[in-house]
Amino acid sequence: MADVYSDSLALHRQFKGKLGVQSLISVKNRHDLSLAYTPGVAEPCRVIAQDPEASFELTMRGRTVAVISDGSAVLGLGNIGPEAAMPVMEGKSLLLKEFGGVDSVPLVIRTQDTEEIIRFVQQVAPSFAGINLEDISAPRCFEIEERLQDLGIPVFHDDQHGTAIVVYAALLNAAKVVGKPFSDLKVVIVGAGAAGIATAKMLLGLDGSAHLHQVQRLENVERVKDVIMVDSQGALSPERTGLNEYKQMMVEFGNLDHQAGSLADVIVGADVVIGVSGPNTITQAMVKTMAAEPIVFAMANPLPEILPPDAKAAGAAVIATGRSDYPNQVNNVLVFPGIFRAVVESRLPKITASMKYCAARALAAVVAEPSADEILPDPFSPNLAAIVAEAVQQE
Amino acid sequence: MADVYSDSLALHRQFKGKLGVQSLISVKNRHDLSLAYTPGVAEPCRVIAQDPEASFELTMRGRTVAVISDGSAVLGLGNIGPEAAMPVMEGKSLLLKEFGGVDSVPLVIRTQDTEEIIRFVQQVAPSFAGINLEDISAPRCFEIEERLQDLGIPVFHDDQHGTAIVVYAALLNAAKVVGKPFSDLKVVIVGAGAAGIATAKMLLGLDGSAHLHQVQRLENVERVKDVIMVDSQGALSPERTGLNEYKQMMVEFGNLDHQAGSLADVIVGADVVIGVSGPNTITQAMVKTMAAEPIVFAMANPLPEILPPDAKAAGAAVIATGRSDYPNQVNNVLVFPGIFRAVVESRLPKITASMKYCAARALAAVVAEPSADEILPDPFSPNLAAIVAEAVQQE
Repeated sequence: MADVYSDSLALHRQFKGKLGVQSLISVKNRHDLSLAYTPGVAEPCRVIAQDPEASFELTMRGRTVAVISDGSAVLGLGNIGPEAAMPVMEGKSLLLKEFGGVDSVPLVIRTQDTEEIIRFVQQVAPSFAGINLEDISAPRCFEIEERLQDLGIPVFHDDQHGTAIVVYAALLNAAKVVGKPFSDLKVVIVGAGAAGIATAKMLLGLDGSAHLHQVQRLENVERVKDVIMVDSQGALSPERTGLNEYKQMMVEFGNLDHQAGSLADVIVGADVVIGVSGPNTITQAMVKTMAAEPIVFAMANPLPEILPPDAKAAGAAVIATGRSDYPNQVNNVLVFPGIFRAVVESRLPKITASMKYCAARALAAVVAEPSADEILPDPFSPNLAAIVAEAVQQE
Repeated sequence: MADVYSDSLALHRQFKGKLGVQSLISVKNRHDLSLAYTPGVAEPCRVIAQDPEASFELTMRGRTVAVISDGSAVLGLGNIGPEAAMPVMEGKSLLLKEFGGVDSVPLVIRTQDTEEIIRFVQQVAPSFAGINLEDISAPRCFEIEERLQDLGIPVFHDDQHGTAIVVYAALLNAAKVVGKPFSDLKVVIVGAGAAGIATAKMLLGLDGSAHLHQVQRLENVERVKDVIMVDSQGALSPERTGLNEYKQMMVEFGNLDHQAGSLADVIVGADVVIGVSGPNTITQAMVKTMAAEPIVFAMANPLPEILPPDAKAAGAAVIATGRSDYPNQVNNVLVFPGIFRAVVESRLPKITASMKYCAARALAAVVAEPSADEILPDPFSPNLAAIVAEAVQQE
């Protein structure tokens, strides 16, 4: 691990980051200049002034998305601020380009105020075809994303939905591997942050704002039987007080039997445990109390909630992590390049819940014959972004 | 002219704008991914969290500036809004790359509120090495730029200083051509917007905020004898009431003889007239009343204040315009690529007044033997950005 860190640092120093800007038009003489700049440039300006929608056809806006972060919840590093978040955001932009062929610009911003972040995104929106919010801490991330859904371009918080889509896809295939109907699965999620809440919503078939009064169950999507969420204080249950509205939603729509207590209490008999919390929160003893053929997704990075060999020894039938050195890596890169490819190719005004389910089903279907060691495609499998983009566009 | 407009529109449509994003690192396998993204990327994040200044060495920030506009004063088109301003901003970014080798990102923003624009620039600053403000209308542009001077990265309003630097350079050489000492020149400026005020300040050797109480005369710079500014109501003079503080400054430091009246009144006996207003505001009759060997810079675009053949027929000895189809094109592209090249090469925290004079003198010196038809270099003359950058860096 030491090598990958020092090698990465050297690489970042060598290139001063990872992304550059490229001229699509050469400017070698006065004629070139007169077309790319004054006086010719006045004409596309005039056309767009008449019809702002033409900016998607006549400027880089139509090909380009922004990756925006306030640096408040970066990887496992926490609230390290905008400058220190830049290597991750630039990395995200690099992956958008390399995997999806999508141009993007990383913007790290010096404010962690919900209203200011919302205003910033509204202000910068005319420059882009879509916005990928990234590494903004919960619960602010929920409100920020929700209030920007009618901006006219998609605002997609990848930590929520990218993760939720990949987990949903992985679980569709894991259910096949263990021979249980998806709709019978009882799921425990450890960690009630951005990824945990979004994953629970998607597994339960919930749509719309996380604000309680605006949440609804979707028709025509496969949903699991139940989801119990566990945060640092234990299971989210009717007994708990002082829950924020996002956690309250999980009590309202999940935890059908109103189970209270610790993770060790509520994991008993569960078919699936999904960790989006921190290292070593799931023990072998817990896995042994789960239903037959337990499914364990332990996605904390770099140290998972339980190491795959330990989970296997405790009886886990299917195991996934966030790491590339074990089978079944749950990695958002399986999804977000395709999502944003669809955004720029089809000038989507928003990413709907239905599109997310279509993306998840398409991703799961890439694996022709799911097995315990292959419930998700490899990030480098060919045409993945195109397959996901097509599923989103068809919806 | 019709051709250049339709050709430009076709070009913009063909490429969807002019600028793309480029990967500097390929991501072909899991090892590449582990260095460019997780887990390796955590290391540059940690280094920057300890020392935010390291972001200039480890991320694209160190190579990249932002071109920011609110679309309120775009070319001669006026307040056409952010979407319609994008072709110009993208063009500016293209020229930064093609002439200066500088990466930049155009950001057009949906607000024309002074406080909001200032806040936006403060928020986005951690993503960039410098900010080029562009096409923001006067007088808001003055306050916005002034209040951002201590941001830690340069904030440079090119409409003001780019123009001022090129005009100053052109006038240094024009004075030589007509054999008059620069310090004896009496100058009339038509148009008291961003470019006019900034040009007057530079010609008068004024530094600092345009706020009256913070303006000072610089030592050790060549300045002209006097500048009289004329706006749509006539000369700025002590008789005028209700002037904004920027125009008031020109009454305080210029117009030594307190001349009032119209342009026709105050141009009498002037050595130089500089037009930064609109078409046909300077007549042949006016030019005939100027001092011997008058210098006429008529820079309104595309239609200048007086056409060069008319100015010449009225006796003008040296004529410059903003157009490429006449000699002596006053074009900001002579300066801004070099300025921002210095910014990214030397991690400058601000652009000082001294740097602007150095840039102007270096630009003037590129023309070995100034003549009536060559007081400025061609934008395509080799190494121009490097020459300007070096002058700025040495200062």
